[in-house]
Amino acid sequence: MAGQRLGEFELIARYFAPLAAGAPGALGLRDDAAVIPVPPGEDLVVTTDAMLEGVHFLIKDGPARIARKLLRVNVSDLAAKGAKPVGYQLAIALPEHLANDEWLSAFCDGLAQDQKTFGIALYGGDTVRSPDRLMLNVTAFGSVPTGAMLRRDHGQAGDGLYVTGSIGDAALGLEVKLNHRLFSSAAMMFFDSRLHLPTPRLAFGQGLRGLASAAMDVSDGLVQDAGHVAVASGVRIVINAEAVPLSLATRQAVAEDRDLLIPVLTGGEDYELLFTAPPRAEAQIMALSRQAGLAVTRIGNLEPGTGVAVVDSSGQPIRLSQGGFQHFGGGLQ
Amino acid sequence: MAGQRLGEFELIARYFAPLAAGAPGALGLRDDAAVIPVPPGEDLVVTTDAMLEGVHFLIKDGPARIARKLLRVNVSDLAAKGAKPVGYQLAIALPEHLANDEWLSAFCDGLAQDQKTFGIALYGGDTVRSPDRLMLNVTAFGSVPTGAMLRRDHGQAGDGLYVTGSIGDAALGLEVKLNHRLFSSAAMMFFDSRLHLPTPRLAFGQGLRGLASAAMDVSDGLVQDAGHVAVASGVRIVINAEAVPLSLATRQAVAEDRDLLIPVLTGGEDYELLFTAPPRAEAQIMALSRQAGLAVTRIGNLEPGTGVAVVDSSGQPIRLSQGGFQHFGGGLQ
Repeated sequence: MAGQRLGEFELIARYFAPLAAGAPGALGLRDDAAVIPVPPGEDLVVTTDAMLEGVHFLIKDGPARIARKLLRVNVSDLAAKGAKPVGYQLAIALPEHLANDEWLSAFCDGLAQDQKTFGIALYGGDTVRSPDRLMLNVTAFGSVPTGAMLRRDHGQAGDGLYVTGSIGDAALGLEVKLNHRLFSSAAMMFFDSRLHLPTPRLAFGQGLRGLASAAMDVSDGLVQDAGHVAVASGVRIVINAEAVPLSLATRQAVAEDRDLLIPVLTGGEDYELLFTAPPRAEAQIMALSRQAGLAVTRIGNLEPGTGVAVVDSSGQPIRLSQGGFQHFGGGLQ
Repeated sequence: MAGQRLGEFELIARYFAPLAAGAPGALGLRDDAAVIPVPPGEDLVVTTDAMLEGVHFLIKDGPARIARKLLRVNVSDLAAKGAKPVGYQLAIALPEHLANDEWLSAFCDGLAQDQKTFGIALYGGDTVRSPDRLMLNVTAFGSVPTGAMLRRDHGQAGDGLYVTGSIGDAALGLEVKLNHRLFSSAAMMFFDSRLHLPTPRLAFGQGLRGLASAAMDVSDGLVQDAGHVAVASGVRIVINAEAVPLSLATRQAVAEDRDLLIPVLTGGEDYELLFTAPPRAEAQIMALSRQAGLAVTRIGNLEPGTGVAVVDSSGQPIRLSQGGFQHFGGGLQ
């Protein structure tokens, strides 16, 4: 990797090949291609997320955090589809000033740490020399029992709308990072960690297979992503804003400045699971929540119609003027 | 795609979703992930190639040619592994000045044309807004009968070294493009087409399954890529420079300037298949060549030892001072 100037093949051997050690099909990253194992009775689920310096991250975020977020946003998509991680391809356009042992070691240590956490291995990829920006792209593979992948388009009127964990912490982290907004130092540390180290809800996502009618992860913003489910499933979604689960830190921030409800509900990068399920699944969903040790909250309903309405607990519509986090792009998927 | 400013979802629907029409598992590019079909008895082969503006291509190459080369360099890797193309993920970091109907239509028409030629469909990907350069990344999937993927590491001493088609045309195209070298206009058009529209040797690659002991495509340069096979297979490779197949245009160019033999043998981007095979396979290889209508030439031998030697027909070593095309990066695979 990193072009002949830095000994491409030596660098692959030194930094990247160890990340493929657990994957026989990766052939030690010494071939043109890899073989992804797909057990009989399983479907291969694939997803891609790119991250660009200055758009999705800053170099000062640090190599390990950049690496881990890159892997986590991809693994989160696998989680949202009920898939078990298998492997990934990594493409990296590396600028000269990062092509050194300190940066590459830290970057690959970050990947190694999260590979272990999520049970995923590197299968291959590409390295190119970038004249300027660091650009990263991961295509991740997971497996589900045949036909069991959770989709966006099977939500039905009458289903409930649920979300895991808490919403808005990453958006407030972005307020701190980009707009220099101040909160307590404990709150700022918490928001920062939620922004830079999202937690893919893998076990919960796999548990949702057969229970959820539709599922995705919250990356563009709760309201926008509910809109994606509404469009794909051909339903209207009503979200009770007061039911949306907030962390203690976010609740305090919103109590002090009600306008923060807009970034909280529309800011994105939560990487929580947003899903729909019929009423008959509710008891099993709550059991899954206890088993996974992960809060799950019913935040709304699916109705006949189109679009997303955000209401207060008396059913009155709330206007969210901002219309959502101006995410810097988005997925083909 | 292309960020909210340009209607990300509308653009995906308008430009990219039609490229997924032949792939039910792509779910119309409306989900977080896709399902790649892997028939029983088949292995899934995966490969990644990235292309960066100003490094691998120029905007003035034109959207259709950029798109087609992007797809072809990836399909060529599948060909070299004996795989049948299945699908691909596309990540695109799109600058503002290209986010218009004219450019995107031409880019996607290029993809559509080559998808049809090579029997491959878009399954998903990611789009991000680039503040400057166009950056493209494809991860391509193919299938082979279980265990039948051609690899780099099974070449054996006593095997012959073979290459398809002709070598060096793309390198002379690069001499024209970057160094303003002049040849006859017919030759320059031919070199240009070989540089910008390589032909993946799919049928031939699939025919090599069970015949070739090792195979790869020539992307970094004939000599360097032979070196990769030598390292992976633990053998020494001797190439007879005078046996290397040259097109008429390249032969004329080298006859006029013998120094051009260096870029020809080391310049890369040929996307021909370089493979090794035992003597007993020779008759079948020649039959495959006739059947595929594609020249194949024995250009050397595998011996015990290490490294690559380039010799003339009397066996005298030839020194290639340049040491190979300074490819702008390289593959993890």
